[in-house]
Amino acid sequence: MSEPKAPGEIAIIGLGLIGASLGLAMKSGGVTSKIAGYDTKSGAGRTAEKMGAVDRVASTPADAVSGASIVIVAVPIVNVREAFTAIAPHLSDGSAVTDTASTKAEVLRWAREILPAHVDFVGGHPMAGKETPGTEQAEASLFRGKPYCICPTIDASPGAIKAISGLAAVVGADPLFMEPDEHDQYAAAVSHMPLMASTALFSLIRSSGSWDDLGAVAGPGFKDMTRLASGDPALAMGIWRTNREALIHWLDRMIGELGRYREMLKDAQDEKLLEAFTEAQVQRDSFLLEPPVRVQESTEVPVDKGKALMDMLIGAKLADNLRRAMPPEPGEKLTKEEQAAPRISMADKVAEGVRRDLEKLEAERAAKDAATDAEKPPE
Amino acid sequence: MSEPKAPGEIAIIGLGLIGASLGLAMKSGGVTSKIAGYDTKSGAGRTAEKMGAVDRVASTPADAVSGASIVIVAVPIVNVREAFTAIAPHLSDGSAVTDTASTKAEVLRWAREILPAHVDFVGGHPMAGKETPGTEQAEASLFRGKPYCICPTIDASPGAIKAISGLAAVVGADPLFMEPDEHDQYAAAVSHMPLMASTALFSLIRSSGSWDDLGAVAGPGFKDMTRLASGDPALAMGIWRTNREALIHWLDRMIGELGRYREMLKDAQDEKLLEAFTEAQVQRDSFLLEPPVRVQESTEVPVDKGKALMDMLIGAKLADNLRRAMPPEPGEKLTKEEQAAPRISMADKVAEGVRRDLEKLEAERAAKDAATDAEKPPE
Repeated sequence: MSEPKAPGEIAIIGLGLIGASLGLAMKSGGVTSKIAGYDTKSGAGRTAEKMGAVDRVASTPADAVSGASIVIVAVPIVNVREAFTAIAPHLSDGSAVTDTASTKAEVLRWAREILPAHVDFVGGHPMAGKETPGTEQAEASLFRGKPYCICPTIDASPGAIKAISGLAAVVGADPLFMEPDEHDQYAAAVSHMPLMASTALFSLIRSSGSWDDLGAVAGPGFKDMTRLASGDPALAMGIWRTNREALIHWLDRMIGELGRYREMLKDAQDEKLLEAFTEAQVQRDSFLLEPPVRVQESTEVPVDKGKALMDMLIGAKLADNLRRAMPPEPGEKLTKEEQAAPRISMADKVAEGVRRDLEKLEAERAAKDAATDAEKPPE
Repeated sequence: MSEPKAPGEIAIIGLGLIGASLGLAMKSGGVTSKIAGYDTKSGAGRTAEKMGAVDRVASTPADAVSGASIVIVAVPIVNVREAFTAIAPHLSDGSAVTDTASTKAEVLRWAREILPAHVDFVGGHPMAGKETPGTEQAEASLFRGKPYCICPTIDASPGAIKAISGLAAVVGADPLFMEPDEHDQYAAAVSHMPLMASTALFSLIRSSGSWDDLGAVAGPGFKDMTRLASGDPALAMGIWRTNREALIHWLDRMIGELGRYREMLKDAQDEKLLEAFTEAQVQRDSFLLEPPVRVQESTEVPVDKGKALMDMLIGAKLADNLRRAMPPEPGEKLTKEEQAAPRISMADKVAEGVRRDLEKLEAERAAKDAATDAEKPPE
């Protein structure tokens, strides 16, 4: 009996917080495919391997990506071009390439310019992170329940798009498809402008002549509001270099909004201010309880919750079983039992399905081994 | 042998998040004095009692404060005047009265106007809280390691000042003495303006026509930056009604700082922006590691780490023992053993000292009881 063909590896280029967390999250999500990792800092590779985020540390980008079915470029945006250039000559035919950078329009232009035509690029941006960068900070749960924006190139194959959205689902995130320009506008509003406001707030207070008193008095509210100011400045620079116009637009709107509040204060329009604060409180609570669900526009590529990723990595049969463990598609009928069952997240179901299937496979294999042993003549 | 005179009760007026947390924190800090609580909502009283935050629920403000040595008014600032008016006729001679409201200058004016001359008012403001109000949310650890601003009235007695700073220390906070106007300026910078910026940010994004997309894409950064927008609007209104000028001043400065960043972006002064972000990152990290320590101006009332509170509540002997469990005063010499001992927080030491002393007292009492029993003739 011939060995089944080993599925392609997954390669992660860049083993910082995001890269190493993706490795850990894929492992804990049930991905059994081998993961190769590369980082320009060799210490990051060793740490990631020790944590179990990667199975092997590659010595060059070429070594990491050759033979890989899926390549994840998880470097700060300022290094994405360079990483694309380093891997481009070594990518396998038909492999799916993705990234994790904070802006998407520019990254998709670089992909078109640098990556070979025989690979499919599907941009990605997990809306997750911590202000403390570094491999040591990686966590398998970093992406759980977080949005994961997916921006395919126009000519990306359905298989590649499904593989990358499957990756997002496997690490516990919610895949959201969008156009790159649309992504950059949204990210400017809810991520890049708040980052700048957080940094501006900290700088303003820190540079005050009364800092020794202000810092001593500052409580948890100030700490939360300035958390983003502790982020990696190189990451921030990558953002404003690739999303300048949108960021300026949203900064202007924020300045306008603060001015509007200031005028209400000055004119003692306390009832109007109270209305604004009450509305914000009510709306934010309802946002936390029930965040808006983006209506996915009908697309030629149906989102099938990771089947393609599974197909590429663990074989079609197992992937089919996994899909059955997933929540139903819209329109799919649920049995009464299914309706009554407690809702668990997609990622939990994936992990649960993988565990069940692996257990079954192992039991089958053990039974077969036992049968083979029984057939063997005693030595 | 006569019973030792029971020390005066502590009264808490207002059993929301702050009031109930103070009760829990005093209990877990080793305060053995009885705590009476009052809230206009009777449900809050029952909840606080069930949680162990108060020993008895008073049916009126008068019932709560009569006979109390220490009275804590823990109501939102919009209700402070009303609470002062309700308790004023019933306060005991020489009792210490404090509050927990977010601004201090106005509160001290109300205290002077409403409270009787035979009590001492010492304003307080614990820089702690959560965006989720309510008795159920109370936690004994809410104040641990947080700044606790203390603003005595000019004529407050040294004993009352010491009692309230001792209260701050007992709940695990760091007491910081300051002038009321000074407090309000500082709080406007690090607390009130950030609260307004957080609310403005949420309103701005929530009112966008693209909210369904923005909300779906928003990650943890946006959630942190808008946390304060979920706070109680009535609390916010109390703040701007009593600290309007300082708040406008700091809003103007924040608008100016955002404008400065905007100009750097627009003029592509990327190096200068990178410098600002790098400086903010470095400074914030050092702020978290080693927050500035406010140099307490020499005052006629030496801060003696809660001795007066202890004296009032648990008797001078126990308080003396407690004081010995405290970290040394600046200038005090440490023995080699003391220097080598691991540093534990003041609150931990208080709790530890109280435990040790109570154990000793109980052992002594048990020994005495045993001796008394032995002397008794058999029945």
